[in-house]
Amino acid sequence: MNLKKLVGIESANYIKDGMIVGLGTGSTAYYMVEELGRRVKEEGLSITGVTTSKATEVQALALDIPLKSIDEVDYVDLTIDGADEISEDYQGTKGGGAALLFEKIVGTYSKEIIWIVDESKMVKHLGAFPLPIEVIPYGSAQLFKLFNENKLNPTLRLTDDGNPLLTDSKNYIIDLHLEKIENPIELAAWLDTQVGVVEHGLFLNMVNRVIIGTQHEGVKTVDISR
Amino acid sequence: MNLKKLVGIESANYIKDGMIVGLGTGSTAYYMVEELGRRVKEEGLSITGVTTSKATEVQALALDIPLKSIDEVDYVDLTIDGADEISEDYQGTKGGGAALLFEKIVGTYSKEIIWIVDESKMVKHLGAFPLPIEVIPYGSAQLFKLFNENKLNPTLRLTDDGNPLLTDSKNYIIDLHLEKIENPIELAAWLDTQVGVVEHGLFLNMVNRVIIGTQHEGVKTVDISR
Repeated sequence: MNLKKLVGIESANYIKDGMIVGLGTGSTAYYMVEELGRRVKEEGLSITGVTTSKATEVQALALDIPLKSIDEVDYVDLTIDGADEISEDYQGTKGGGAALLFEKIVGTYSKEIIWIVDESKMVKHLGAFPLPIEVIPYGSAQLFKLFNENKLNPTLRLTDDGNPLLTDSKNYIIDLHLEKIENPIELAAWLDTQVGVVEHGLFLNMVNRVIIGTQHEGVKTVDISR
Repeated sequence: MNLKKLVGIESANYIKDGMIVGLGTGSTAYYMVEELGRRVKEEGLSITGVTTSKATEVQALALDIPLKSIDEVDYVDLTIDGADEISEDYQGTKGGGAALLFEKIVGTYSKEIIWIVDESKMVKHLGAFPLPIEVIPYGSAQLFKLFNENKLNPTLRLTDDGNPLLTDSKNYIIDLHLEKIENPIELAAWLDTQVGVVEHGLFLNMVNRVIIGTQHEGVKTVDISR
């Protein structure tokens, strides 16, 4: 079985009746949402989903999963989402699917977070995968210049037709090609203070459980104590 | 003469031929832009304006002031803008006019910043005037709750018809009613790291010159060494 599908289905087992569930975005979270839709339909599971993107909202609505906005719930019991990279100390980067802002907002108000990945996402150091930064369009060329001056190798993410990609909040994504992030906490702190940066793809000290799909050992689950 | 008009006109004297000028937003900056328009028309002053809001853009275009986006210039020579409060150590708060994000973006890329105010804005401590926070709408009720838990006395800024006010970037403004900000640097650092906060109204270590309109002593100009 496809490793993404394997962990997507496995992770849905953690969803219990009555939960408010944060629904991640991307090609792995997709399978979790599909399985959740199946359980709602076939098992009569009663949950409320909180989506992290318009794409996931469309998918969940088609599956008749009841939805609320993050602002209509007290908190989220459990969020299940993918990740672009997870380091040996379980720090992550996200945003390959351009949904990092809403993913981080929903994650921030979640009691528990599970990341689901295939083994290729488990890395020694973060950084081989480009780090996405969501930025306000006005001033984005100045930020791009600043990132360049700081040798962060920025590229502006474009759509297939060559225009800047717009996030669900109508912002741009600048991807930083870093190869290796020496100090994620320091980089996150620097990015947080840059004017025009809305959010960045470093998800630090957030995840509680990682479910990894492997070719030879099946599903591996790691609980992270925080 | 109206003190706002007095300092607006005075500040325009600092604009020299050939400059790229950041044009602030609000009831005091309004007079500076009007005077700049007069100088462009009557004196043939040649400058390029970089606006900080749609409102100022509309005003400047009506005055035939040539404009560029912040992303079309290398840098801004001088930005002239108002402020809501300026403390004894020349830290400021801005955003009463809901334009803090673009004001901070333009200010960030300016070689020099002048704030123009009437004397009522000069205060011992910041905080009597509400501190505006620009936030992503998704998750804003959660942020509101967080601000409440931290005793920051938030209110969501509404339009006259009772709907949430939308900024030029289609975000919300939450005003914090703090009375007195004990440590602006600490508060700014905390706000910078909050997910969903796009920008805040604390403008720290930014201003180079303050021009103050007073009832009894006319115009007072203070140069701040940074």
